[in-house]
Amino acid sequence: MDLLEYIESRSEEHLSDLKEFLRIPSISTKREHKPDIQRAAQWVADRLRDAGFSKVDIIPTKLHPLVLAESLEAPGKPTILIYGHYDVQPPEPLNLWTSPAFEPTVRGGDLYARGSVDDKGQVHIHLKALAALKKSTGKLPINVKVIIEGEEEVGSVNLWEFVVNNKDRLKADFLVVSDTAMLAPGVPSITYGLRGLNYYQVEVTGPAQDLHSGVFGGAVPNPITILAGAIAKLHDKNFRVTVPGFYKDVVIPSAKERKAIRALPWKESEFRKTVGAPGLCGEKGFTAGERIWCRPTLELNGIWGGYTGEGSKTVIPSKAFAKISNRLVLNQNPEKIAKQVERHLRSLLPKTVHCRFDVLSTGKPWVAPYTHPVFQLASRALEQGFKKKAVFIREGGSIPFVNQMYDIFKIPCVLMGFGLPDENAHAPDEHLSLENYFGGIRSVALFYSNLAQL
Amino acid sequence: MDLLEYIESRSEEHLSDLKEFLRIPSISTKREHKPDIQRAAQWVADRLRDAGFSKVDIIPTKLHPLVLAESLEAPGKPTILIYGHYDVQPPEPLNLWTSPAFEPTVRGGDLYARGSVDDKGQVHIHLKALAALKKSTGKLPINVKVIIEGEEEVGSVNLWEFVVNNKDRLKADFLVVSDTAMLAPGVPSITYGLRGLNYYQVEVTGPAQDLHSGVFGGAVPNPITILAGAIAKLHDKNFRVTVPGFYKDVVIPSAKERKAIRALPWKESEFRKTVGAPGLCGEKGFTAGERIWCRPTLELNGIWGGYTGEGSKTVIPSKAFAKISNRLVLNQNPEKIAKQVERHLRSLLPKTVHCRFDVLSTGKPWVAPYTHPVFQLASRALEQGFKKKAVFIREGGSIPFVNQMYDIFKIPCVLMGFGLPDENAHAPDEHLSLENYFGGIRSVALFYSNLAQL
Repeated sequence: MDLLEYIESRSEEHLSDLKEFLRIPSISTKREHKPDIQRAAQWVADRLRDAGFSKVDIIPTKLHPLVLAESLEAPGKPTILIYGHYDVQPPEPLNLWTSPAFEPTVRGGDLYARGSVDDKGQVHIHLKALAALKKSTGKLPINVKVIIEGEEEVGSVNLWEFVVNNKDRLKADFLVVSDTAMLAPGVPSITYGLRGLNYYQVEVTGPAQDLHSGVFGGAVPNPITILAGAIAKLHDKNFRVTVPGFYKDVVIPSAKERKAIRALPWKESEFRKTVGAPGLCGEKGFTAGERIWCRPTLELNGIWGGYTGEGSKTVIPSKAFAKISNRLVLNQNPEKIAKQVERHLRSLLPKTVHCRFDVLSTGKPWVAPYTHPVFQLASRALEQGFKKKAVFIREGGSIPFVNQMYDIFKIPCVLMGFGLPDENAHAPDEHLSLENYFGGIRSVALFYSNLAQL
Repeated sequence: MDLLEYIESRSEEHLSDLKEFLRIPSISTKREHKPDIQRAAQWVADRLRDAGFSKVDIIPTKLHPLVLAESLEAPGKPTILIYGHYDVQPPEPLNLWTSPAFEPTVRGGDLYARGSVDDKGQVHIHLKALAALKKSTGKLPINVKVIIEGEEEVGSVNLWEFVVNNKDRLKADFLVVSDTAMLAPGVPSITYGLRGLNYYQVEVTGPAQDLHSGVFGGAVPNPITILAGAIAKLHDKNFRVTVPGFYKDVVIPSAKERKAIRALPWKESEFRKTVGAPGLCGEKGFTAGERIWCRPTLELNGIWGGYTGEGSKTVIPSKAFAKISNRLVLNQNPEKIAKQVERHLRSLLPKTVHCRFDVLSTGKPWVAPYTHPVFQLASRALEQGFKKKAVFIREGGSIPFVNQMYDIFKIPCVLMGFGLPDENAHAPDEHLSLENYFGGIRSVALFYSNLAQL
């Protein structure tokens, strides 16, 4: 039977199998769900065996197990490594779900459940595409390694330990990940660029302890006022970051790429609606799309200090805090940027306060060489699977895994995402478009089939 | 027996009686302490009867009872109204107390217990001074009304309802309050000025909901950054408040008063040590003392928005909040100032955000006519009681009761405080200097005795 016919004939079976997967509350942050995590790992392992993988291991770690599978029965053909995760975010707040988080429910062409888009549904696309290839043609056309982890939502610490210690076992020609979103409905997308992420915490201390604002007010350094004063100077009136050297290494996308980005079917009016603010703002000289995909930022992610309860308390606090992050683009060096930001921030503070500056994490930007043939194959497969032209997009966010894998293996990474930006990953009423789910299975199966010809 | 000899002979009895009072955990904020509150009110009423008050009422309110007593047996003599409160703050955090909060303990000349300085100890000074007058001379030399409430630490709402509805019953020539602090150890003080207090809450809303800082960062208005930008513009580089009109009605103390303030035995070096910041700062052209007592301020009392937990979360929050307050001096009009602050703050915000501005409270400044004979009598009594020269001081804080009483009765208010600034009112290890406690009883008894000659 033809591959696409086979997939078409199994639609109901696929959906019902996905629902079974989504019913397992594999919440990695909560200790009481350890048995569910174990069950989900077992479930993934079973499906991989079903897809013809002879070697399938559930590898225990210090926290949650990894599922690792290999099918190396296509000598001379490319080897891919597929990555995904079977763990999910907690479902809370429960009262905001229209149907229960772990009772998958179809409404209006979407499947609602925790994990539907992030990432069980997207993992399932690969499981079913592989099974379809195996069952309709008798064998997998390429060599496939699969690693599905259970700690993505808690930082992937044990995944990294495993990857670093098992480089040979994971070696491949390409990495394939489905954990991103399409540009918009009906626009199959390959993500070729991600911003890097630096995250800092700042602590400003004025008085040695909280003081009464009546008894001391007017004569002592107020850390909130002083921190706000420094924050206010981190951008100029054109919304450019004032950190000296911040833009020095930034690569501006080519005129061709900027043109391509502006030509994408992405509507600023839709973006405005999603944001819901009275107005937008950003760095002068760039479109909203460019600001998010191609320009570095400095954003305040949190601020706190003094009294934050109901009513009033007349305190001048000893301390005020802020969480600050940078999104970085090529060729900014995260460690260098972290030092520049710290130096600049300290220079903006008066001598009347102490400052503690902690770098919580740094992360490099990533841009794929999207003219490589593997990306063209992926693009063609998406076009065949969706009967819509595929586009190359960037994302403003960061996926540390992609960078780290690139650093270790130096192989192209194909991010074929089947989510949509408004499908509530990490929020109540998470869902996945069934059109994209089925289109995903078709596209991925075609992609792997085409890869054999590379 | 002479008045002071009588008081001296009763020292041990007084201290042991105060300890009994302090053992009652009359915490007004906590429902489970309602029986203790009742017990404390009863205790105060008993002591007032013991001091010779024939009419003593425990008046129930919607929350905690008031104790009201009258002794009007000195026709032709002045009538005073004494105010105090028998309720206390919660003792938490308990682990920071050297000895338990409700087990009064003497260490190094101080009595440690919740309520020792704020305000049971100071109420007790008046109870014992009155009893001493009665017992050593047979009758009170002046007419005395006493009102001791149980809701000071929760806003005095029911006190106000009672005062407004019982003006005739509370009518007096002078109000006497002991709920403030002395300038420094060994410096008996009368507080003649208080700053007014306006308190605001500001809410700035950018996006309609929290957004991912990767997916949106760089293209949307960040309410934290924007709020910080506005806060940074509320002071100029000379630490003057930039609100237009803010200083217009401010009365600068006379050269004589400024000179008197500078001559007080108040050490900026001690102040620096208490503050414990790397440096001090404040409005140009004024000393630290003047900044606190005689100049208006704008202080940030709280700020919050976005992620404030451990580690990192890549959010651009929908909202950021701040608590802001003004300390006001004569002749600033609190309502006018509130409007000016709101107008100015709004003018500092861009059109990309919404702003909600709530005035939580307003309060007038107060300065007593300290050349009035009653203040001279009080000053002389303090000098006799402490064998130290008494001083006239202001306080940077606010006591709404004093203003409100002045507004209703238009009578001089004598603030004779026996606390010290570092006695940890509202904090663990609250204490009261026994020297000041005994000096207080002597001074208050002498003051009331002298008042008969007015």
